[in-house]
Amino acid sequence: MIPTAEALRSRIAASRPSFEEELRALVEIPSVSTQPAAHAADVRKCAEKAAALLGESGASDARIVPTGGGPTVIGTLRHGADAPTVTIYNHLDVQPADREAEGWQRDPWKLAIEGDRYYGRGATDDKGPAVSALWAARIARELAIPLNVQFLWETEEEIGSPGFERVFSSPSGPAPTESVLVSDTIWISRERPALSLGLRGLAPALIRLETATKDAHSGVAGGAARNPITELCAVVAGCVDAPTGTVKIPGFYDDVRAPSQAECESWLSSGFQVDAFQRALGLKSLRSTEVREITQRIWGRPTFEVHGIRGGYQGEGLKTAIPPRAEAKVSMRLVPDQAPAKIQELLARHVHGLVPDAEVVALPGLEPYTADPDDEYQKAAREALAAAHGAEPALVREGGSIGAVVTMQRHLRCPVVLMGLSLPEHGYHAPNEFFDWGQASRGILAFLHYFDRIARL
Amino acid sequence: MIPTAEALRSRIAASRPSFEEELRALVEIPSVSTQPAAHAADVRKCAEKAAALLGESGASDARIVPTGGGPTVIGTLRHGADAPTVTIYNHLDVQPADREAEGWQRDPWKLAIEGDRYYGRGATDDKGPAVSALWAARIARELAIPLNVQFLWETEEEIGSPGFERVFSSPSGPAPTESVLVSDTIWISRERPALSLGLRGLAPALIRLETATKDAHSGVAGGAARNPITELCAVVAGCVDAPTGTVKIPGFYDDVRAPSQAECESWLSSGFQVDAFQRALGLKSLRSTEVREITQRIWGRPTFEVHGIRGGYQGEGLKTAIPPRAEAKVSMRLVPDQAPAKIQELLARHVHGLVPDAEVVALPGLEPYTADPDDEYQKAAREALAAAHGAEPALVREGGSIGAVVTMQRHLRCPVVLMGLSLPEHGYHAPNEFFDWGQASRGILAFLHYFDRIARL
Repeated sequence: MIPTAEALRSRIAASRPSFEEELRALVEIPSVSTQPAAHAADVRKCAEKAAALLGESGASDARIVPTGGGPTVIGTLRHGADAPTVTIYNHLDVQPADREAEGWQRDPWKLAIEGDRYYGRGATDDKGPAVSALWAARIARELAIPLNVQFLWETEEEIGSPGFERVFSSPSGPAPTESVLVSDTIWISRERPALSLGLRGLAPALIRLETATKDAHSGVAGGAARNPITELCAVVAGCVDAPTGTVKIPGFYDDVRAPSQAECESWLSSGFQVDAFQRALGLKSLRSTEVREITQRIWGRPTFEVHGIRGGYQGEGLKTAIPPRAEAKVSMRLVPDQAPAKIQELLARHVHGLVPDAEVVALPGLEPYTADPDDEYQKAAREALAAAHGAEPALVREGGSIGAVVTMQRHLRCPVVLMGLSLPEHGYHAPNEFFDWGQASRGILAFLHYFDRIARL
Repeated sequence: MIPTAEALRSRIAASRPSFEEELRALVEIPSVSTQPAAHAADVRKCAEKAAALLGESGASDARIVPTGGGPTVIGTLRHGADAPTVTIYNHLDVQPADREAEGWQRDPWKLAIEGDRYYGRGATDDKGPAVSALWAARIARELAIPLNVQFLWETEEEIGSPGFERVFSSPSGPAPTESVLVSDTIWISRERPALSLGLRGLAPALIRLETATKDAHSGVAGGAARNPITELCAVVAGCVDAPTGTVKIPGFYDDVRAPSQAECESWLSSGFQVDAFQRALGLKSLRSTEVREITQRIWGRPTFEVHGIRGGYQGEGLKTAIPPRAEAKVSMRLVPDQAPAKIQELLARHVHGLVPDAEVVALPGLEPYTADPDDEYQKAAREALAAAHGAEPALVREGGSIGAVVTMQRHLRCPVVLMGLSLPEHGYHAPNEFFDWGQASRGILAFLHYFDRIARL
């Protein structure tokens, strides 16, 4: 079904002008989901433009499904009733971009095409991969690959997909599907394609302590008065060994499923480079400098982080008051088979053991995700990436969380393949974000190889 | 030299209308030292008004001495060259007051006279005691008590007296003196006068840690990246046992001089009430509920407090970033014979042992102060208070620090007596601050008894 490599490459190359105009149309709509007051209308406009693109591509069912917040766009390029269906997930919402404050060298809301590069907010996260997948589906249709390709484009990913789950109980929700393809992950380096076999989950919480109704003078009260900040510091020190990051909450590691030996070896040979990782993130030092240890730490192990302690004096210098209350903002990244609710319960029990009158407020969690590497869809994805890129893909994980993945797995009850097209240098959430035609064109090719394989499963 | 009690009381009562007009004149100048941009001119104006008051009272040497910041007013009601000199310290600067934000029931910058009460910012801290002392000196002069009374009124107490020390190297600085009387302390309760025999010192520091140049995504980096907040929490937990307040810095307690048994007994019988203390400070719970333990904690023992941890996310909810840097704002209250510089050095060594790349910035410290209870000036003060109030004074300490006390002791090389007139309910630094004629009139009487006694030493 797949024609010669040469013919395929020509067909993909011919799509480039249209690809660029479609990417431009989407990037130039500032669909910032984190700023609804300013951009809710842009998010809506972007969904309408995307639905129009699906319609023009032959998706007669293209529609916008309400979620209570940013809507989801659904539409299918159908082959026929007896063909299997793959559902492709991307998101159309983007991070904010402030040219002056963040130091963009170009207008973030104008697509700037320079050589192979496409600069603009959302170019790589996640509009470029979305348009690439759309082009793969259009060409698959021309090639009569027997597969229905259903697109599921949400607009709330950057805010944790609060309304996305409602799509699955909507009468206009997605059709049943045999598998899901998520294209919102990042390779380790340009040299080698990457397939992500897992995501970490998230268990966030606020730990609050109120010991008084107002500031106390540390001379008048100090010694007799409790200090909510030092007590919260003791709680934090009781929850995590700061130098190593080892979590000290009893039972925390009980459900951790260690990555297989094969997975660890695959991380070692993934092309992960300590220097590049450290430089890209601006880290002055690391808890380890070994590839094996770092990859296990960021992909295979859970964490406990404090993101801020609120309530004390924040100005210059010092104010000798004992504050009446304080709040530690913490989160734990989770790995299979840790469950956010259970972990939050263990945290609360441990905190109350340390400081009985502390309050622990669990915030909505995200479950970790792991794929079965022996699943036939994962195998098909590996073969497709190898065929398109001429290199075996690195099998890695993502240290972050994509809430929609677990939601889709739960509702669509099928394998989820994480095949991203982005590179570290593309700059997810960073100024001067870009995507490039090399990743787009090889991505379209890889998707086509994947479609061809899963159509025959 | 002192006439009958009845005659003295009449003379003091006759001063009341003038006392009130002088207090009004000072209170209605908003001499807020903590807000120099808005109030430096008011501080100056208040100093000029005070110098004029001294001049009108017969201090021919009344002058304003520059300090680089808020000036100091000096002037002497002289008896003669062969009389001893007492120097009376008060401060003319005040805390800020915002009627709306703080909930004042009256304009804080208008003196409201209601019965015996004088409402207004600075009424009790420290303008009321200053005018009381001035009236005592005027009446002492009428009575020909052989004593020179030199006033030393500074205008930077609320900001830690940064320039006050320059007064002593100024050609227009204070004359030599046999003793100093500081009237800026608070009784335990209205029922019993109090004499403070000590002040705690202060060793403030900033503990900084920078582990990166920018926020890191806690999914991408979490586990490998250091977290400066959790490391600072570990430092804090390594410096203080939060529930008990016991300081864990090696050597910290080495120089602590325990209060004498007599002093501890005196604190027990000082009239200190746990309920009133807890209610006044709005403390929901205390580290102890025993009078003996609380008074030792606030007057006789050093502390370690964290006033804020700066650098992490402070908004609502949670942001899952690992911050690049954080700063713990800490201070230690010190007791005799702890030295701020040595304590700051012990802190730095301990912190560096815990986190080698943390930075410890020592801020200007204040030495603790303790009086010799057997000193003849202290004895004279006890007798004077007993004579004026008909009750033996409680011998207590102040848990806070008055930087000027140690500075004066160092430069004037003489005993310093802490005889305050304020009551807990007067509301130091609080909204609806007031002073009252009862404390003013009995204070003038006590000062007169004191002058009479020390003139004869």
